[in-house]
Amino acid sequence: MALYTEHQVGPRNAKTFPRPQPARHPNSMGSTFTGSILFSFSRSRVFLTENILNRAGPPRSITKERQRTGTAAAAELGFALWRTTFLYLLLPRHQAAAATFNHRFCTLSVKPADEQSSNGASFRVSALPNLKEQVSPVLGRFNRARAARLTLPHFVSQTPLFMPVGTQGTIKGLTTNQLEEIGCQIILGNTYHLALRPTSELIDELGGLHKFMNWPRAMLTDSGGFQMVSLLHLADITEKGVTFQSPVDGKPMLLTPEESIQIQNRIGADIIMALDDVVKTTITGPRIEEAMYRTLRWIDRCIAAHKKPNEQNLFGIVQGGLDPVLRDICVRGLVERNLPGYAIGGLAGGEDKDSFWRVVAQCTALLPEDKPRYVMGVGYPLDIVVCSALGADLYDCVYPTRTARFGTALVPEGVLKLKHKAMAEDTRPIDPTCSCMVCKNYTRAYIHCLVTKDAMGSQLLSYHNLHYMLQLSRDLHSSIIEERFPDFVRGFLQKMVNAECECSRKERDS
Amino acid sequence: MALYTEHQVGPRNAKTFPRPQPARHPNSMGSTFTGSILFSFSRSRVFLTENILNRAGPPRSITKERQRTGTAAAAELGFALWRTTFLYLLLPRHQAAAATFNHRFCTLSVKPADEQSSNGASFRVSALPNLKEQVSPVLGRFNRARAARLTLPHFVSQTPLFMPVGTQGTIKGLTTNQLEEIGCQIILGNTYHLALRPTSELIDELGGLHKFMNWPRAMLTDSGGFQMVSLLHLADITEKGVTFQSPVDGKPMLLTPEESIQIQNRIGADIIMALDDVVKTTITGPRIEEAMYRTLRWIDRCIAAHKKPNEQNLFGIVQGGLDPVLRDICVRGLVERNLPGYAIGGLAGGEDKDSFWRVVAQCTALLPEDKPRYVMGVGYPLDIVVCSALGADLYDCVYPTRTARFGTALVPEGVLKLKHKAMAEDTRPIDPTCSCMVCKNYTRAYIHCLVTKDAMGSQLLSYHNLHYMLQLSRDLHSSIIEERFPDFVRGFLQKMVNAECECSRKERDS
Repeated sequence: MALYTEHQVGPRNAKTFPRPQPARHPNSMGSTFTGSILFSFSRSRVFLTENILNRAGPPRSITKERQRTGTAAAAELGFALWRTTFLYLLLPRHQAAAATFNHRFCTLSVKPADEQSSNGASFRVSALPNLKEQVSPVLGRFNRARAARLTLPHFVSQTPLFMPVGTQGTIKGLTTNQLEEIGCQIILGNTYHLALRPTSELIDELGGLHKFMNWPRAMLTDSGGFQMVSLLHLADITEKGVTFQSPVDGKPMLLTPEESIQIQNRIGADIIMALDDVVKTTITGPRIEEAMYRTLRWIDRCIAAHKKPNEQNLFGIVQGGLDPVLRDICVRGLVERNLPGYAIGGLAGGEDKDSFWRVVAQCTALLPEDKPRYVMGVGYPLDIVVCSALGADLYDCVYPTRTARFGTALVPEGVLKLKHKAMAEDTRPIDPTCSCMVCKNYTRAYIHCLVTKDAMGSQLLSYHNLHYMLQLSRDLHSSIIEERFPDFVRGFLQKMVNAECECSRKERDS
Repeated sequence: MALYTEHQVGPRNAKTFPRPQPARHPNSMGSTFTGSILFSFSRSRVFLTENILNRAGPPRSITKERQRTGTAAAAELGFALWRTTFLYLLLPRHQAAAATFNHRFCTLSVKPADEQSSNGASFRVSALPNLKEQVSPVLGRFNRARAARLTLPHFVSQTPLFMPVGTQGTIKGLTTNQLEEIGCQIILGNTYHLALRPTSELIDELGGLHKFMNWPRAMLTDSGGFQMVSLLHLADITEKGVTFQSPVDGKPMLLTPEESIQIQNRIGADIIMALDDVVKTTITGPRIEEAMYRTLRWIDRCIAAHKKPNEQNLFGIVQGGLDPVLRDICVRGLVERNLPGYAIGGLAGGEDKDSFWRVVAQCTALLPEDKPRYVMGVGYPLDIVVCSALGADLYDCVYPTRTARFGTALVPEGVLKLKHKAMAEDTRPIDPTCSCMVCKNYTRAYIHCLVTKDAMGSQLLSYHNLHYMLQLSRDLHSSIIEERFPDFVRGFLQKMVNAECECSRKERDS
């Protein structure tokens, strides 16, 4: 079967592009945020009240918060910095200057940092090859954000794109017909789970995972290593591979890079992932360096073991923790191997948002323009918007389906907790602006009644949440193509901010 | 809202039909089975081997079986009698004489009992009013079996019909779109569960259960009494009603006939059920009589409490255990009240098959021809075929969805246990002759992999099983209309017998 991506037509057809210029050291960026901190932002709630507006330092509410829980407040402050940074990064200077959020009772204005003192500006273009010199497979771009067409053996996908995770050869609660219905283009299969059951040999025998689970579109499998390390207590990583106790019979087992690729060759996904040495970003010291170099050594073993380079795209994974020097070495090492695509790994593991986006920004800046970039384990809508603004293309996470099982729906205003008492008599759909089957047919009151009591509740919420993520992917793609990406992002943020303002006002009024 | 059924247009529009003649006492039927016992039959397996064919007494395999478990063997023997009886009852004599099952290696021939000595024959027609004198809403009939159109406020249904059970305002795992897709016409809501959560008041406020759960077709609610008695250990029945400990706060509570009807009036189903005093059929003694007379006293309180007789059809429930005299009194008592429909209650609770069909046969013979007859709690495909042959119209049971959750699929051959090892590499659909979404898209191997590990497994099996039940309903309806009911039943039985022959042969050969 002929394999080609418009990003890159497989290693054999690779072209040599100008080596990207290294970005300036991201650690030096801390000094560039000279604008006011206008609002703070936490993962699930925006703390925005009138009294924290137009303050130059950390808002008072955060200071108060810090008295209670230092860590949470620090994380929140980091997030506030990150948010402000993001706006600078995203918007061209003249737009950032004018970027104004209007809502009911307060105005947020983002002021630009001094043009000359902002190192952040260099991020936007410096790492990119001259676009005119490049045969670009990217359909549209805004600064670093790109909208591309990714041609895979089973489906032509559009990026930015969220890929739902189907652990056991199924996206929990959705039939493959329903997945197509909501516009799902690539799904992720967990090699570890599939290798245990029904086993890769059987999948191969039955014609591959596509046929086995009746999924006609594209598919990606991970290496299995991350699941072993995170799910099995006795897993250990040596130069040979990942050693672990078999969950079936307790015997010691070994997953080598060669075996991971062999299993993935049998499963037959469009994109397969190299086995990497994953270390939590919260760990520091020499282990990070060891893991990064081991990941680079293993990529050669993966490439050598890959038996279907014309049918399956092998992606390498950038490791290196939060250390920009190690990340730099890893990216360059992988780019030298000229792989069909690259993933940014080891993130979304508890590091603060500021560190997270720095690593993504650094890696996307260093990675070749013409290859897809996949940020592993990222699934919060806001993170996807930010990473897309930073030039990433693919994302996966269990968050939308897992949070559904806990009774939470993703909505433009943030999240809607269907378990909440207020939902019991709410006859509106989850999201009145959503066009999905669930929002067209069911009320919040009905889902409130089912949620956590009946599998149907999480099934309906999973459907809605995945529809939300794929609609977000489509919106990102089209807004970049149609040159209205900043407007889209502003609208996206404004809805969340407005909702929280509403929330604050209610609290104030009550 | 105008309510009418073609069976009966509500109590106010009731016509007086000739009182049906009582059937002969069913207990006297034991002596009529003079034909050979040709094969034995248990709920999940047909024991059929060459050496048990053409024997006049109980087959040898049953005798052997009895040595191991007396009860099981006795039940099996009862079932064998019942099966033979059923064939006599179903088929006109000249057809029964010729009814021949051909399969690979043996021939089953059903010989008619002596025409003169068979009291069973009287069942076929004696209880029915003269058809020519009656304005029949029944579209077609074969002997006692009927195919009718049941016009309810929300939907015009076709009987015989299986009604899936949606405990908490949802049929587990299926969206309402999917329920329509598989041809579901009436669904059953459990008043007990709905009254607890979200409460009938809230359902009323939100516009009724139809609107709440987005179900445009017909609906039936039970009285809530049965769930209380079966689910709550401290429930007790007094003349006032069912007393029980609130599962919410432990306080003593009372469900009266009036309150049951009030709750059901609020929920707003097309068919509502009277509160009855349910006693297990395995109980004997004066309690049975007490419960039957109480059910008759309560029906008047239900009728008086019913505030929406032109919008909702109140069905009475025939009680009386296995005692034909009590059943007779109860049927006559209820028929005097001229209700829109009648249910046969207290069955499918552990009694032997022989007793079960006798009660159904007695009741359907006594009930008016122009009103729907609903056999409560019946859901095994074979039972539905038998009850339809005996003149029943409606059925409900959690069996198809519950058995799905245990990994079992309903197929023409009986059941298919998807957990079985043999399924792991079986690339066929559950039922190659089935046209449902699951059979069109997924293999046995795939469902085997999911089943009991992932909610998706039971979701797909529930879909298939309900499709099977509704296809069976449609087949019963059309085969009666098209005057090929005996052929359909023969085909239905033959598939099961052939499958078991195949099974026996494999066991013999191995």
